[in-house]
Amino acid sequence: MERPRHQGMAKNTYMRWRLPLVCLLWEVAMIVLFGVFVRFSPEADAHWEEEKRQMNLTSDIENDFYFRYPSFQDVHVMIFVGFGFLMTFLKRYGFGAVGFNFLLAAFGIQWALLMQGWFHSFKSGKILIGVENLINADFCVGSVCIAFGAILGKSSPIQLLVMTLFQVTLFAVNEYILLNLLHVKDAGGSMTIHTFGAYFGLTVTRILYRPNLEQSKDKQGSVYHSDLFAMIGTLYLWMYWPSFNSAISEHGDAQHRAAINTYCSLAACVLTTVAFSSMLQKKGKLDMVHIQNATLAGGVAVGTSAEMMLTPYGSLIVGFICGIVSTVGYVYLTPFLESRLHIQDTCGIHNLHAMPGLIGGIVGAVTAAAATEDVYGKEGFIKAFDFTGAYQTRTPSVQGGFQAAGIVVSLVMAFAGGALVGAILKLPVWGDAASENCFEDDVYWEVPEDEESDVYHMHNPDKPASP
Amino acid sequence: MERPRHQGMAKNTYMRWRLPLVCLLWEVAMIVLFGVFVRFSPEADAHWEEEKRQMNLTSDIENDFYFRYPSFQDVHVMIFVGFGFLMTFLKRYGFGAVGFNFLLAAFGIQWALLMQGWFHSFKSGKILIGVENLINADFCVGSVCIAFGAILGKSSPIQLLVMTLFQVTLFAVNEYILLNLLHVKDAGGSMTIHTFGAYFGLTVTRILYRPNLEQSKDKQGSVYHSDLFAMIGTLYLWMYWPSFNSAISEHGDAQHRAAINTYCSLAACVLTTVAFSSMLQKKGKLDMVHIQNATLAGGVAVGTSAEMMLTPYGSLIVGFICGIVSTVGYVYLTPFLESRLHIQDTCGIHNLHAMPGLIGGIVGAVTAAAATEDVYGKEGFIKAFDFTGAYQTRTPSVQGGFQAAGIVVSLVMAFAGGALVGAILKLPVWGDAASENCFEDDVYWEVPEDEESDVYHMHNPDKPASP
Amino acid sequence: MERPRHQGMAKNTYMRWRLPLVCLLWEVAMIVLFGVFVRFSPEADAHWEEEKRQMNLTSDIENDFYFRYPSFQDVHVMIFVGFGFLMTFLKRYGFGAVGFNFLLAAFGIQWALLMQGWFHSFKSGKILIGVENLINADFCVGSVCIAFGAILGKSSPIQLLVMTLFQVTLFAVNEYILLNLLHVKDAGGSMTIHTFGAYFGLTVTRILYRPNLEQSKDKQGSVYHSDLFAMIGTLYLWMYWPSFNSAISEHGDAQHRAAINTYCSLAACVLTTVAFSSMLQKKGKLDMVHIQNATLAGGVAVGTSAEMMLTPYGSLIVGFICGIVSTVGYVYLTPFLESRLHIQDTCGIHNLHAMPGLIGGIVGAVTAAAATEDVYGKEGFIKAFDFTGAYQTRTPSVQGGFQAAGIVVSLVMAFAGGALVGAILKLPVWGDAASENCFEDDVYWEVPEDEESDVYHMHNPDKPASP
Repeated sequence: MERPRHQGMAKNTYMRWRLPLVCLLWEVAMIVLFGVFVRFSPEADAHWEEEKRQMNLTSDIENDFYFRYPSFQDVHVMIFVGFGFLMTFLKRYGFGAVGFNFLLAAFGIQWALLMQGWFHSFKSGKILIGVENLINADFCVGSVCIAFGAILGKSSPIQLLVMTLFQVTLFAVNEYILLNLLHVKDAGGSMTIHTFGAYFGLTVTRILYRPNLEQSKDKQGSVYHSDLFAMIGTLYLWMYWPSFNSAISEHGDAQHRAAINTYCSLAACVLTTVAFSSMLQKKGKLDMVHIQNATLAGGVAVGTSAEMMLTPYGSLIVGFICGIVSTVGYVYLTPFLESRLHIQDTCGIHNLHAMPGLIGGIVGAVTAAAATEDVYGKEGFIKAFDFTGAYQTRTPSVQGGFQAAGIVVSLVMAFAGGALVGAILKLPVWGDAASENCFEDDVYWEVPEDEESDVYHMHNPDKPASP
Repeated sequence: MERPRHQGMAKNTYMRWRLPLVCLLWEVAMIVLFGVFVRFSPEADAHWEEEKRQMNLTSDIENDFYFRYPSFQDVHVMIFVGFGFLMTFLKRYGFGAVGFNFLLAAFGIQWALLMQGWFHSFKSGKILIGVENLINADFCVGSVCIAFGAILGKSSPIQLLVMTLFQVTLFAVNEYILLNLLHVKDAGGSMTIHTFGAYFGLTVTRILYRPNLEQSKDKQGSVYHSDLFAMIGTLYLWMYWPSFNSAISEHGDAQHRAAINTYCSLAACVLTTVAFSSMLQKKGKLDMVHIQNATLAGGVAVGTSAEMMLTPYGSLIVGFICGIVSTVGYVYLTPFLESRLHIQDTCGIHNLHAMPGLIGGIVGAVTAAAATEDVYGKEGFIKAFDFTGAYQTRTPSVQGGFQAAGIVVSLVMAFAGGALVGAILKLPVWGDAASENCFEDDVYWEVPEDEESDVYHMHNPDKPASP
Repeated sequence: MERPRHQGMAKNTYMRWRLPLVCLLWEVAMIVLFGVFVRFSPEADAHWEEEKRQMNLTSDIENDFYFRYPSFQDVHVMIFVGFGFLMTFLKRYGFGAVGFNFLLAAFGIQWALLMQGWFHSFKSGKILIGVENLINADFCVGSVCIAFGAILGKSSPIQLLVMTLFQVTLFAVNEYILLNLLHVKDAGGSMTIHTFGAYFGLTVTRILYRPNLEQSKDKQGSVYHSDLFAMIGTLYLWMYWPSFNSAISEHGDAQHRAAINTYCSLAACVLTTVAFSSMLQKKGKLDMVHIQNATLAGGVAVGTSAEMMLTPYGSLIVGFICGIVSTVGYVYLTPFLESRLHIQDTCGIHNLHAMPGLIGGIVGAVTAAAATEDVYGKEGFIKAFDFTGAYQTRTPSVQGGFQAAGIVVSLVMAFAGGALVGAILKLPVWGDAASENCFEDDVYWEVPEDEESDVYHMHNPDKPASP
């Protein structure tokens, strides 16, 4: 039998038995757990005809499917095409970017249906799933895609599957603490998805610090076409973000409002990103890294508050600020984090998700604290913050305090969870590549060996130097 | 006047008069037939206001447009971007893949509106079309796109238009037999679209067998960027498949359930595809061909049963199996079919559509046979299988038998139809290319002649070898 | 401080202070104006619960969000991915195509919300915005994207922002004259978006005529991969055009009908485009320029009439004609316009938007003039043309006359506005590139300097010729 190919620094990246084993084992586990626990929600069950009568619904259009399915599909595109293609900017890691993102997300959504199901949709021993669960599973996986951005190009598919397993679990716990125990609002996930996901990923990449990564520095850049592929990801994230932030809001005005606020924030964000991208470069030229990433910060930063009465101009202000913060982060903070704090952040998730996520949490807390019955209307006020039952007496300022607490909890969970998972991923059994082979598809993928390969001067240790 | 360029083995690929003639002739025919037959359905007609009163509908939202339009658009994307880009993996056939797919689908949907209209929407001498007809036309064309995958790179645009004309016709007949005569359920088209389309295409390609195809073997591979373009197709097919399988299901729970089942099946399929792709390669590396194709088999295989009470874990099992079957097919079966049975299947549709389609038919038959009033509820049971009117007394096991018969009918139609159409396409008048010019856009397209062409070492007989 | 790089013919393309200044200034203006004027419409406001009761709505599904949001997202994709990627066909202007389109559209939608808001949604001193406003803002920006197509590769980002500011303003005025003063129907914007946008852009490019543009002639072509990127844009425009033409039609049958008519027209258009593309080329080969553009003319040309009772075969006829007109335009008219009239039209918007837009206006006028109560039904007739209030007595033939007047007004506004804006853009302060540097991303973008760049033989004045 042929020996595995890449062994730089005695690293064994041979996946033939380990990767199939992990994939099959986990998928079998999913089947067993789904068999025991997962059933259709009443709105997806064939008993719906009777259910409809009981719920006094006169039309099939009242099925939650019609309220949320279009948003679900937009979110689905963001997770698989949006995140997947955004990460194809690297010149020789397109297969890994889009392929591993596909793999981890496909596993993650299954595990998320279970984890979130146990916390939120568990009734008489069964998890009852409908379209809202699918959206939430995609959301949860979104936080894993974010963390993937920090370790892109440096990790094996097995590491990614292990990280997904743990991160989804921790996400569900954190989400439960925020939404159920603290009774916090976070429909677009500034805290649960972005802050948690980003600081989790940054902690993991800190622990997996590779001192010799400059050996593959030449592969960390883009080429002309890879930047265009990445723009596909950017634009789908940008265009569908209004769906993301409104997907699980209350029916009616809340969904409507969340979409409008997000649309406004994103539009403003593009202009300040362009302004600062040009301003911070000596020759005044625009940098595709900023256009691909910082333009999205406005969506992250209204994740908590979009469904609130943030107002269109409030959204513009948030987007305005975040385009600046994010672009400045790419120019000054990312190099600093790498050289001083040893945080190697391939996609710059600190600028796109971490900081805007924090801002989003704060904006949400302030917007909640500033809410009045005058602005929301009496009924709208109660509905918007779900001030019913045990929370009937909660005031806006108290809600603002709890929102702020949600940020802190998310950060603590991210750092602690990231440290734990980083330590696990550091074990020398997961088949990650040597530093000189990072950012190189050839390690885990059959790469077409044709004329073009020579053009790209791909580093291929098996082939003699071209004559 | 300049002579046509490619004439290897005396083949005349000159399209100048033949292709325009076919296109114009057929489009004029469409206009005449639409003029005689096609009108708006009541829900798209300006008389809707009165219609609404008669149907006792209180709101415009009850218009079928709002139940199905989002799904229609997803299906539309699958046909044109999904299939179109999935086939761009070939290094020098991207124009043909996406362009010819565009052409045949644009013609096919018109002809399908007529053919399916005569069978299903014919009232007092007119075909009345609404959004559901558009979806069904896209579905019908989907089966042609599948067959196109088998002969990709080896056929002229005229051959594709001729094939589309015949295949759409046969599709409509087969569909009528299954849905109306056998009263079979097949909302996602495991039988009518995938089994029929794939075996039809395989029969056609068998008859068009080219013994000297290895002459263009070097062009049958991909290059790095073409594999990324193909992933766009893959992901859109994968993400929107829940819309595909639910698009024409009954309003309410059936659509909802079909989307969930498909989502689950597809997720499981990704993991087993990755597992077997790695396992079956000596070096354990992943193969983009598998990731691009086998990950979709789970959607094909729940095409019949997704709207039934397959349950999420049942869907996972189906996806699990199909990822394996499809990947194994790419590794072992495709070479066998080519070398022994002389079936040259460019895209491997046998692995992505034929086998999973058959599995889908069988899963549908079993799921139908296993249905009980307990699981579906009394009303849900009748609604799910439309056990009304003449079918009031049909039992689940009888339904299962008819479902199985539907598979057989689809196979027979595919083989017989494919043989007929293959024989027609073998006539030497359609302008297909010589074997040494297959998989080469330059035959039918103006290809930009620039620096990059030299890089790709494109075979261009007109230019002298580069100095 | 380093000196700006590109100074061919003493042109200063240094953007460092000018571009940020314009972006920040305009975004601050947006925030102030939004703060003063823009609020949520009742359906997006937290008072919706009370509003719902007042409007006697029984369900949240009656919120306009659920009628229009899926269409909005499709339109959104058309503006950012559709137009953006359609223009990436140039071999070295992909960043500019997709990036500048992103920038101008992000600014444009904000300014359009204000301009259109003052004209159409102004109530007690506030502009109340909902999902329909978002669609209209995207529409308005669509006309700017069209004009951008004429000057693609030849203008600086500041010029584009200045043009956007003026064009959006003029668009809103023109739209107000047509829709409110003339009471014209134009839901898909054949007149307001396409005719106006295209002739505006053509006038601008005429005034900005560059006599020495052949200096960059070699960069005006495509390369193999850039043509595939452009096909992404084409297909998304083509697939989602039914949503475009139906997005703001009346709820119910009008939206339904508009989608069907557009679907039919586009399908027919593909076949005649292919026919004439092959017929007009000596070797009978297909030209990607035609496939990328002329296939879309059918959508433009039913922009006015799609929501009327055009009927499916009427749509086929319109699409049939427009595929021919547009393809013939690319082959014969574009070279003529450039050589004789000095209209340099990079993307050929005259063939895709101007002529089909005019045809669309005429088809709309004729269809309106031919309307009868018999065809529409008594109520449908009144609803379709909004023959209520002051327009109660307007007859179809009068309506047809007003429709025709709408074309004339749009043309006048386009020529006058284009002349004004062209003159402004001709001022030597906006930083546009010298003619020899046109169609070159390197002027305004950081372009990755890697192996691939050498392959493309990019003109880079800073680097010595490769050894």
